[in-house]
Amino acid sequence: MSANTFGQRFQLTSFGESHGVALGAIIEGCPAGVHFDFAFLNSELQRRRPGQSAIVTGRNEDDLPEVLSGVYEGKTLGTPIAIIVRNKDQRSDDYKEIATKSRPGHADDLWREKFGHTDHRGGGRSSGRETLSRVIGGAIARMVLKEIYPELKIFGFATSIGPITLDPQQILKIESDLIEKKIIVDQFSSRLPDQQKNIQAQDLLLKAKTEGHSYGGTAEIFISGAPVGLGQPVFHKLKSDLAAAFMSVGATAGVELGDGQDAAEAEGSQFHRQESQRHYGGIRGGISSGEPILFRVSFKPTSTVLDAAKKGRHDPCIVIRATPVLESMAALVILDHVLWARQDKV
Amino acid sequence: MSANTFGQRFQLTSFGESHGVALGAIIEGCPAGVHFDFAFLNSELQRRRPGQSAIVTGRNEDDLPEVLSGVYEGKTLGTPIAIIVRNKDQRSDDYKEIATKSRPGHADDLWREKFGHTDHRGGGRSSGRETLSRVIGGAIARMVLKEIYPELKIFGFATSIGPITLDPQQILKIESDLIEKKIIVDQFSSRLPDQQKNIQAQDLLLKAKTEGHSYGGTAEIFISGAPVGLGQPVFHKLKSDLAAAFMSVGATAGVELGDGQDAAEAEGSQFHRQESQRHYGGIRGGISSGEPILFRVSFKPTSTVLDAAKKGRHDPCIVIRATPVLESMAALVILDHVLWARQDKV
Amino acid sequence: MSANTFGQRFQLTSFGESHGVALGAIIEGCPAGVHFDFAFLNSELQRRRPGQSAIVTGRNEDDLPEVLSGVYEGKTLGTPIAIIVRNKDQRSDDYKEIATKSRPGHADDLWREKFGHTDHRGGGRSSGRETLSRVIGGAIARMVLKEIYPELKIFGFATSIGPITLDPQQILKIESDLIEKKIIVDQFSSRLPDQQKNIQAQDLLLKAKTEGHSYGGTAEIFISGAPVGLGQPVFHKLKSDLAAAFMSVGATAGVELGDGQDAAEAEGSQFHRQESQRHYGGIRGGISSGEPILFRVSFKPTSTVLDAAKKGRHDPCIVIRATPVLESMAALVILDHVLWARQDKV
Amino acid sequence: MSANTFGQRFQLTSFGESHGVALGAIIEGCPAGVHFDFAFLNSELQRRRPGQSAIVTGRNEDDLPEVLSGVYEGKTLGTPIAIIVRNKDQRSDDYKEIATKSRPGHADDLWREKFGHTDHRGGGRSSGRETLSRVIGGAIARMVLKEIYPELKIFGFATSIGPITLDPQQILKIESDLIEKKIIVDQFSSRLPDQQKNIQAQDLLLKAKTEGHSYGGTAEIFISGAPVGLGQPVFHKLKSDLAAAFMSVGATAGVELGDGQDAAEAEGSQFHRQESQRHYGGIRGGISSGEPILFRVSFKPTSTVLDAAKKGRHDPCIVIRATPVLESMAALVILDHVLWARQDKV
Repeated sequence: MSANTFGQRFQLTSFGESHGVALGAIIEGCPAGVHFDFAFLNSELQRRRPGQSAIVTGRNEDDLPEVLSGVYEGKTLGTPIAIIVRNKDQRSDDYKEIATKSRPGHADDLWREKFGHTDHRGGGRSSGRETLSRVIGGAIARMVLKEIYPELKIFGFATSIGPITLDPQQILKIESDLIEKKIIVDQFSSRLPDQQKNIQAQDLLLKAKTEGHSYGGTAEIFISGAPVGLGQPVFHKLKSDLAAAFMSVGATAGVELGDGQDAAEAEGSQFHRQESQRHYGGIRGGISSGEPILFRVSFKPTSTVLDAAKKGRHDPCIVIRATPVLESMAALVILDHVLWARQDKV
Repeated sequence: MSANTFGQRFQLTSFGESHGVALGAIIEGCPAGVHFDFAFLNSELQRRRPGQSAIVTGRNEDDLPEVLSGVYEGKTLGTPIAIIVRNKDQRSDDYKEIATKSRPGHADDLWREKFGHTDHRGGGRSSGRETLSRVIGGAIARMVLKEIYPELKIFGFATSIGPITLDPQQILKIESDLIEKKIIVDQFSSRLPDQQKNIQAQDLLLKAKTEGHSYGGTAEIFISGAPVGLGQPVFHKLKSDLAAAFMSVGATAGVELGDGQDAAEAEGSQFHRQESQRHYGGIRGGISSGEPILFRVSFKPTSTVLDAAKKGRHDPCIVIRATPVLESMAALVILDHVLWARQDKV
Repeated sequence: MSANTFGQRFQLTSFGESHGVALGAIIEGCPAGVHFDFAFLNSELQRRRPGQSAIVTGRNEDDLPEVLSGVYEGKTLGTPIAIIVRNKDQRSDDYKEIATKSRPGHADDLWREKFGHTDHRGGGRSSGRETLSRVIGGAIARMVLKEIYPELKIFGFATSIGPITLDPQQILKIESDLIEKKIIVDQFSSRLPDQQKNIQAQDLLLKAKTEGHSYGGTAEIFISGAPVGLGQPVFHKLKSDLAAAFMSVGATAGVELGDGQDAAEAEGSQFHRQESQRHYGGIRGGISSGEPILFRVSFKPTSTVLDAAKKGRHDPCIVIRATPVLESMAALVILDHVLWARQDKV
Repeated sequence: MSANTFGQRFQLTSFGESHGVALGAIIEGCPAGVHFDFAFLNSELQRRRPGQSAIVTGRNEDDLPEVLSGVYEGKTLGTPIAIIVRNKDQRSDDYKEIATKSRPGHADDLWREKFGHTDHRGGGRSSGRETLSRVIGGAIARMVLKEIYPELKIFGFATSIGPITLDPQQILKIESDLIEKKIIVDQFSSRLPDQQKNIQAQDLLLKAKTEGHSYGGTAEIFISGAPVGLGQPVFHKLKSDLAAAFMSVGATAGVELGDGQDAAEAEGSQFHRQESQRHYGGIRGGISSGEPILFRVSFKPTSTVLDAAKKGRHDPCIVIRATPVLESMAALVILDHVLWARQDKV
């Protein structure tokens, strides 16, 4: 397995530097005959696009994908799907100074030591721009899942942005509203799906963006309609693969399944007797139980270059744009295990 | 990659059912010429052994390993190392009733649905007994690491057992005591390396064991002396591989790197200006920075069979015996990346 | 992928030195619920066993397998199947001198240079004894194939032993007799399934064994009843995976598909107009066509230690014992692609 | 491992349909800091280009590569190298009729059965055009090898084209002339490096091209200067990986190492006593011995569409254009094992 390929049966290979010619994705293991929904791919890319609102980075990219292979007459061919997105607003002059300057929290110095020769313009591969490839992969995974498990839904939303936090009851309500299609996360620009807290978050982040500040935050990934039996028993437990998927996203600081940290404080006979199985997070023994799968992912504050010139070219809270990336990673893991499960029985 | 193999360059394959003939491990990718320290392997297995103290499960197993291949005249051959441990105290009669009975929190029902045909005796592969294979793998990884990076140390200890919790200052003190060899974790039977809290934990768990209760808890993995540059930039970030490793252990509910959850609440300019880099957890951009690597892993309470007959045959808090397993998983990941880094530069 | 694991979906991991404690196999990716035919496993091991007749090596091994995991109540569990065979007649004293002596055609010197530290006793892993693991894997692959494609048969037989060669008409006749169950290859001790030539081969090899001589030879692998569509289009063409499988066996010098070498001399319009598709070897564009699959594998003469003490401890022609090994490798490849094809379509 | 990725440490992923938008290659595992020789990449692509002479297919493609990622300021970054080539002369109208028509020897019917939905235009992925990706990969592999083993050379040449065949003495002479740089294969348009036979081959193939005929043939791959110790002992023997590499190329019918087929007829004590080790083909026990590595690859005649409109759009003998592809595959395998060998010793 290589450093830039994710998955065992359904595989995404990601390539491209933040300020190079193009980024892209190769999808392997996609079954033939799947309806290829180009409009959906585009809309997914728009969801993580810089410049989508006033509270994300202002880097100006259209992020329009070009499909080079693997699709013919609107359907997948079973051959590798190659999709690229050309970089437009590279503005690498801005980054020239980075060559000689350290950016706190960034890994420029470690890359230099590791590889000897590096692309200093905006982080190269360690830039968040790389996640574009993941959203391409996730969009295609969802096209496939839609045909196999039409009821399966993957939702992502912010549960905290800096000090602004949803309380447990709100989260329960949001989960049930999402299933019943009563709310749409993307209608909240901070992806905190609460009217009032969304406004607070907007205010906080607008100010932060102007002042060159940033905040950490937390997102929940909530998957309903997954079948029983996904996950492999030992090293590819569903929880292990999801944890790896989420922790491969930049700026992540932790993941929790179900009750997570709270489970650590619990006494067992009460914990296991609870009526709701929500605290198991939809996974037992590493295998999906058919109940909603629940993960929370923590992010540290974005690393920033604090001088004037760069202001407006950073995300004041990465959770907003990371949410569709987490959903994509979840889709990749789920589909991988759906295909894998085809060899469980003779 | 298969469901029972872990790692890319240095690979552990785990096999064996909890109540089958034997469990074991195959190690592939181990360089030739490494001194094979059989006594160390044995001592590592003793550290996770059931029956090691009054506050772990009473299942009686010697866990004596037999080396079948890959070692000759005290050194590794560069060929697969195969090691087995025969099961002794299978007592599968105890488990016969399980065939028709559900165990809360266990995955017996999911396995039945997934595989159709299953081994109902004590969980088969979903049993914690499988982690024996990981300790074998981890012990060998440490033998190799010892020759390449003699200064590299991997420590694991409990930071909480149910309601008994170390506070942050204590944890800092323990970390520095470990490096300076002032304390030895295994001298605390609960692996909470604080005299007073260890006694509290012992009392709590002795009572729990008698009454058929159990508790969740948290462990820290602390790695000092790791070189700069371990980890691959995108999908095999060091933090991602460590997260997958830890979350592949049974009963885990979450992982945190460095400040973890606290990072999510932080404001960036303060977070990144901190003098200590401890809050990054020793990993930036997915790559080791040369500073101590810090992970915390949460465990939910052990699933239990609550009737009288099984009392004493469960771990009242799995953190104690899981700690050497987490250390082993960390060793596997670290060595995998040490070997991987050999192709970073031409 | 590791050096000692074969296959992508159905994986065999081989371990064990020729003169170590034991050899064995781990099978991963075996679906659950397959009837485990222990008697068949044993009979397959007997087919490659040393000492099976006067014209193979006299090393005395029972080759009795012990199943350690993955099977319960006569069926596979979907977990790793671990099987070991202990070495009995190690006679490594005989090999002590090898430590300082070169054996023509053997790789002892190359191993020493590659690994530094090696097991000089009888070749370690480069010994033909390692193929025992492949026969275990192949036997299990056949158990699975039997349930999925009961009509699929894999036959192997010698087509030449040194100067004694079957002519093309004989080969055609043997193929059709095999399908119609008119002959059984193992009733010919040289596995040249022709009464007269078998006797010639016996005489030749008995003499060679006494005199410390050896011969090259050729075997055909003939697979009937394989479904259409096995193989992946580019790098895992069925012919490519079969070629790798066969060329991974010691002493092989070449493989041919269908007309092989003769195809190179052909003119296309005649070649492609032939009525029989036999010359394509049952594979077009890398994918099985539903017709019989035909491969021929050439072996160079066995490397020998020519002094008196070792006489009788070598195979005068390795083709005899290699034939069941080639069948096993074919079974592994075919099943791997059967499982892989489960993700061809949505 | 996926169907379109080749290699374990140094990996080529190939994508693109013959008549799609573009084809390309992703290279993973390329160490950082390697001088990227764009002119060399171009010249390698020209060597396999259609339309390079009168005796290959007339499809008109410039085959100009665009580097999208992985290279910066003339050096590799250690990140994935993505390179694409856009299709120009797709002329897919010509192929419309193929949708309903069978092409003898082609796999169109098998693809339809395997995948359900296929790209009927000129074979899609089963077209020889896919090999362009391999030449990209091979060119980069050679850039890396040049820095690590400057003396290592990989030569390919035709040894037969239909009935026109080099005799063994000529081949020995060519090998030594190649090492001494006395001849350049590409100065012979048929890549049969003999003045007279080259002219014969030209005449034969010009006539064949006009008449819609085709011929099989044979190529030799000759590698000098490879270090001792490449190859892994069991399943990734150097010969096994090279065989897989070569047999993954379309139209191949067989491979031979060293004496190949002739070895099968040999008597051992003579075979192993030969002074020259040429008959082992430079590989013993699966591991390179430091002597020249010798492989011969047989090709069946090209499949052809025989009606008037397609004349001139086929290769009358694929060996000519396959030779640089085989060299590329050899380079990929050799470099893969060079990197792999970095973990042989501690």
